[in-house]
Amino acid sequence: MATKSEICEPGTENSMVKTLEWTDEGVRFIDQRKLPTEETYVTCTTYEEVADAIRTMVVRGAPAIGVAAAMGIALGARNADAGHVSELRRAFDQICEAMGETRPTAVNLFWAIRRMQQKFEACSELPVDQIRQALITEAQRMYVEDIAANEAMGRHGATLMPASGGVLTHCNAGALATCGYGTALGVIRAAVEAGKKIQVYADETRPFLQGSRLTAWELMKDGIPTTVISDNMAGAMMKQGKIGAVVVGADRIAANGDVANKIGTYTVAVLAKEHGIPFYVAAPFSTVDLETPDGSKIPIEQRSTREVTHIAGKAIAPEGVKVENPAFDVTPAKYVGAIITERGVARAPYEQSLRRLAETVAAAD
Amino acid sequence: MATKSEICEPGTENSMVKTLEWTDEGVRFIDQRKLPTEETYVTCTTYEEVADAIRTMVVRGAPAIGVAAAMGIALGARNADAGHVSELRRAFDQICEAMGETRPTAVNLFWAIRRMQQKFEACSELPVDQIRQALITEAQRMYVEDIAANEAMGRHGATLMPASGGVLTHCNAGALATCGYGTALGVIRAAVEAGKKIQVYADETRPFLQGSRLTAWELMKDGIPTTVISDNMAGAMMKQGKIGAVVVGADRIAANGDVANKIGTYTVAVLAKEHGIPFYVAAPFSTVDLETPDGSKIPIEQRSTREVTHIAGKAIAPEGVKVENPAFDVTPAKYVGAIITERGVARAPYEQSLRRLAETVAAAD
Repeated sequence: MATKSEICEPGTENSMVKTLEWTDEGVRFIDQRKLPTEETYVTCTTYEEVADAIRTMVVRGAPAIGVAAAMGIALGARNADAGHVSELRRAFDQICEAMGETRPTAVNLFWAIRRMQQKFEACSELPVDQIRQALITEAQRMYVEDIAANEAMGRHGATLMPASGGVLTHCNAGALATCGYGTALGVIRAAVEAGKKIQVYADETRPFLQGSRLTAWELMKDGIPTTVISDNMAGAMMKQGKIGAVVVGADRIAANGDVANKIGTYTVAVLAKEHGIPFYVAAPFSTVDLETPDGSKIPIEQRSTREVTHIAGKAIAPEGVKVENPAFDVTPAKYVGAIITERGVARAPYEQSLRRLAETVAAAD
Repeated sequence: MATKSEICEPGTENSMVKTLEWTDEGVRFIDQRKLPTEETYVTCTTYEEVADAIRTMVVRGAPAIGVAAAMGIALGARNADAGHVSELRRAFDQICEAMGETRPTAVNLFWAIRRMQQKFEACSELPVDQIRQALITEAQRMYVEDIAANEAMGRHGATLMPASGGVLTHCNAGALATCGYGTALGVIRAAVEAGKKIQVYADETRPFLQGSRLTAWELMKDGIPTTVISDNMAGAMMKQGKIGAVVVGADRIAANGDVANKIGTYTVAVLAKEHGIPFYVAAPFSTVDLETPDGSKIPIEQRSTREVTHIAGKAIAPEGVKVENPAFDVTPAKYVGAIITERGVARAPYEQSLRRLAETVAAAD
């Protein structure tokens, strides 16, 4: 990526992580591939660089991907060589298409693209420069709304957390997966702020290690007690009575409540059911895809086998071995105790409760 | 370790892996920490070196640990400066004690030590040099018996495997965990030899990666189709109908059929139950510990946090983060469809079936 990058001193006090940010130069990201050992920031100055940052997981997490795409579109429109609206529209359509091809599962990406398209349509009568500015403003508004949604999710979800004890989370659904505060980790943060004595168990989350690299890193910055475990230890921890609740994020929630989320989420949900532990999903309402009837219709991204066969550039499997690497799995609604959104908490039957929330004006709005 | 080491050319054709071997110089091991990228052999010339090799997982797998300990004891007795039986006994007791302190969970270790102690007692009237020789012969006999037991397990277990399709295994219970052929992988090998069309799914098995590093390596040498998955993918693979059976090894089986095995085994067992997939355990009868009434009494080794926080020397978690690293977990008997031993197949209720097998003369003897 032809990006400007800066390295911060590790250990710098900065409890508010800036996952992504609109700047005059372009879109600035913390490079999540390098955490926790390096706190590096990259600034993407073209929309192609933003698309690359999404594809290569410089930025990841469904809500963050959505806002990153919106900012990438605004950036592309700002940079486009267009004197007339028709020229800008041609460039804009191409930018939106490129952005839509980065990652297939997180529906927030498509939601963000659609919202930018609606904004374009709404102001297509204005002069070109005002359209460009309106798109930038819209992306910035989505950024602010995302944080507000997470805080609202926190308020709704905190009451579901146990007063004390272990809460398991998988992958990273934190500040680093959003514009700030986090979805699942936002619920945990809000519970801690409300005085609950929570000890987080963070699944390391192979193959990309978002749990050990990202969740542990951001929770430690906040002083929330965190224990990293290998994914395969979750069952043993539950059996030992160390886990009182599970809370995870989501990449897409179907109309019936089936939840696509990071690979391994389904395994955790089955374990939670077996141990009678409540399993919660926290996600902004933009993650709910009412046009997808159930989980079987959610496209699941397959990523490079190298993520499984190599760690830190070193081979950990024999050369040429066959590998599966689905980035996500689908947890059927029957395992989901509640879906926590900024509009309120949905419970089964989700077909009804999600539609009801769809008609609600968000409490956070 | 002050050991002689040899590096074999990678890719050398050698389908029979020599996990461990008695040689005139000492006990020779393939260094399992370096697989699959380096095929290195080390020869331990003192019992302390053998104890170290067990502790540091140069050699691992309950049956292999047992025979390694027996060979280490024979080596120590051979090297001991003892002119009289009383002197040899003093040295011998010290060697057995050191060997017993290497790893706490695999009961085969204690079984092997006890068997060497019984051999010592049985020939304690003989001259010192004949005792030394008898101990060497006993360790070598245990080596041969282990392979025969695995082959018998294979015959008993092959019939339980599906005629075709996916079989999931966790960790490495193969040739590398034994003196050859393997327990769980012995069952798979025997099924393949009987013409079954099996595709193995190998959980990578964090944190030590025995599945991706060892199981995949030895099965590929044998030309058995193998797919490596991250541990957290097991649920998704089962849900997709890719897994017809699970077979794993064991480090200790309590009298009631509770099974201690590599961390993550319990998670796999719960998933198998949820999907109606049979879950089998294959282990030599020396793994059955009738003196331990149930799994709650099995000591579980906690290993270094660094195994979880670092891979290939690189940090994958923030410095100072809390970590759990139990090396094993306990799968309650209710999840276990059958325990395959060289003496036959035990089914629930295990309290009775295991005791019955204890009274049986092994079919393989």
